[in-house]
Amino acid sequence: MPETNRRVLLKSRPPGEPRPSDFEIAEGPIPKPSDGEILCRTIWLSLDPYMRGRMKDVRSYAAPVEIGGVMVGGTVSEVIESKHPSLRPGDLVVGMDGWQQYASSAPTGLRPIDRSVAPISTALGVLGMPGLTAYVGLLDIGRPVAGETVVVSAASGAVGSVVGQIARLKGCRAVGIAGSPTKCGYVVNELGFDAAVDYRRDGFAEALRDACPNGIDVYFDNVAGPVLEAVLRQINRGARIPLCGLISQYNATEPPRGPNLAPLLTNRGLIRGFLVFDHFDRFGAFVNEVGAWVRNGELRYREDIVDGLDAAPQAFIGLLEGRNFGKLLVRVSEERPVAGG
Amino acid sequence: MPETNRRVLLKSRPPGEPRPSDFEIAEGPIPKPSDGEILCRTIWLSLDPYMRGRMKDVRSYAAPVEIGGVMVGGTVSEVIESKHPSLRPGDLVVGMDGWQQYASSAPTGLRPIDRSVAPISTALGVLGMPGLTAYVGLLDIGRPVAGETVVVSAASGAVGSVVGQIARLKGCRAVGIAGSPTKCGYVVNELGFDAAVDYRRDGFAEALRDACPNGIDVYFDNVAGPVLEAVLRQINRGARIPLCGLISQYNATEPPRGPNLAPLLTNRGLIRGFLVFDHFDRFGAFVNEVGAWVRNGELRYREDIVDGLDAAPQAFIGLLEGRNFGKLLVRVSEERPVAGG
Repeated sequence: MPETNRRVLLKSRPPGEPRPSDFEIAEGPIPKPSDGEILCRTIWLSLDPYMRGRMKDVRSYAAPVEIGGVMVGGTVSEVIESKHPSLRPGDLVVGMDGWQQYASSAPTGLRPIDRSVAPISTALGVLGMPGLTAYVGLLDIGRPVAGETVVVSAASGAVGSVVGQIARLKGCRAVGIAGSPTKCGYVVNELGFDAAVDYRRDGFAEALRDACPNGIDVYFDNVAGPVLEAVLRQINRGARIPLCGLISQYNATEPPRGPNLAPLLTNRGLIRGFLVFDHFDRFGAFVNEVGAWVRNGELRYREDIVDGLDAAPQAFIGLLEGRNFGKLLVRVSEERPVAGG
Repeated sequence: MPETNRRVLLKSRPPGEPRPSDFEIAEGPIPKPSDGEILCRTIWLSLDPYMRGRMKDVRSYAAPVEIGGVMVGGTVSEVIESKHPSLRPGDLVVGMDGWQQYASSAPTGLRPIDRSVAPISTALGVLGMPGLTAYVGLLDIGRPVAGETVVVSAASGAVGSVVGQIARLKGCRAVGIAGSPTKCGYVVNELGFDAAVDYRRDGFAEALRDACPNGIDVYFDNVAGPVLEAVLRQINRGARIPLCGLISQYNATEPPRGPNLAPLLTNRGLIRGFLVFDHFDRFGAFVNEVGAWVRNGELRYREDIVDGLDAAPQAFIGLLEGRNFGKLLVRVSEERPVAGG
């Protein structure tokens, strides 16, 4: 057992793009669990765009990270000491232990992981919060009908890749928007999307129109900005737009103007913001349905793994610029082989 | 019986604010009804913001008015000749006869008017299309709950005045946004809104915040633009925004940018465009409920009347600038007294 707990703290609040100097790597003592608590060793740390919001000192749906506080983040961890009757050393749990090697906490809100279902890292991706986000945003808010056209931005990412594949499995035309020819090729050739369009190319709006010859019925929006504006001009009557993220503006120093909403009126369209935290009641249905697709290979996923906690700040900065390719994860420590496995 | 039919034609498509010269007043023969048709004399012509869209040569939910064609518009008319078995001379009907003194048409889509319910002009306002717009937009899309705060823009207008009064009758706090101190005073003192804010004043956003101490749950939007942007910054969790009109940009030569949508995401809010034409199935419920409120004086309305068809272009131009005060109507001809009345 090591002597210290390595952690990534928020050092300063960046006005625009975060820089490595906005984070501080610190060593501290390994916390001791009190009665009713468990001590966990972090194996996987999830990096997600929402974390940029937590770096801002503004009222939102969750409190900001304090200056000097540990960056928040979803984790897969191994219990190494337990003072709680429901968990034993060796158990694996999904939690919110943040950007650190060890955390001690009461196990409320932790979810045990069954290693036999899928690789444990998927509990942070396709079978975790990003997968649930895709599932409820698309099915409960987007409500696609077989034969409709579903467009999703950040299509090769943790959420978008699941959105498009579920749309296909539900009988829709799935069109992805992504930030490079490689990513576009991936979502079509590896994930089975019907088409993909690179939003960085000239003539993006025309290419999107070519990819959606019957217009757009559902747009699952992860990015807002000019992509949303272009999509709105191509929506069909009664279109539904689940608003899941606004990656394009998370680094903006001033909130940029948004899209003109005239197409929403003339087409009787709907934009609805949602947060996955409101929809955990759907977790069981999600894991049943998407878990089966993952196990039988009908739904695929890609992980973009960086090694070691020290690499987290740079990887997170790249995530906000679209430099990741697939679900971004930090391997904080090695998963121990299963006894007898 | 006069010899000619005076009409207002669309002469040119204005790029920005319409000018009187974009309209042409023309005289022509009074049309002759064919078998199955009726000939009507227009009594009241309704002027409404949607007409600005029909002057543009763009694909929308309805075809544009042709150059040289009669401007579209809702009308209350008297049947003066009938070749249809269901209508007799002297009957009053609501239709879409447009900006002209006489029209001959098959009576499909016409709605007979019962003079005993309310003044016949109300069939174009509080008990007509604007009233139904308010009713379905607020109740079916906004879904206000007693105790919530409902904000409506263009609050002294044909739609907004009904929205706020229904909100009050349903137990909500009703806050109006209007374009002058006089209009603000009217909606509070005459219509019973809880508060009103002049969007032209300095410190509009702060004044709106003062008027909505518990935040905004429903915003019935008639205007879009900066007012929508300010409202979005004050919405509560789960807010609903029926998008009914975008008056602020109907004269724009280029579609302006819209509001930043971040508050919609963090508050899990909803913006939904709607057109009253999709909701005529609610007409019966609307007339029953709102008609009763009008008759017993619980719901009040104000008409802004101009005399004579020649005044229609200037009145319509003023409507787009917010110069009307109440439901804007053109008295095209006099209503004849009821026989024996």
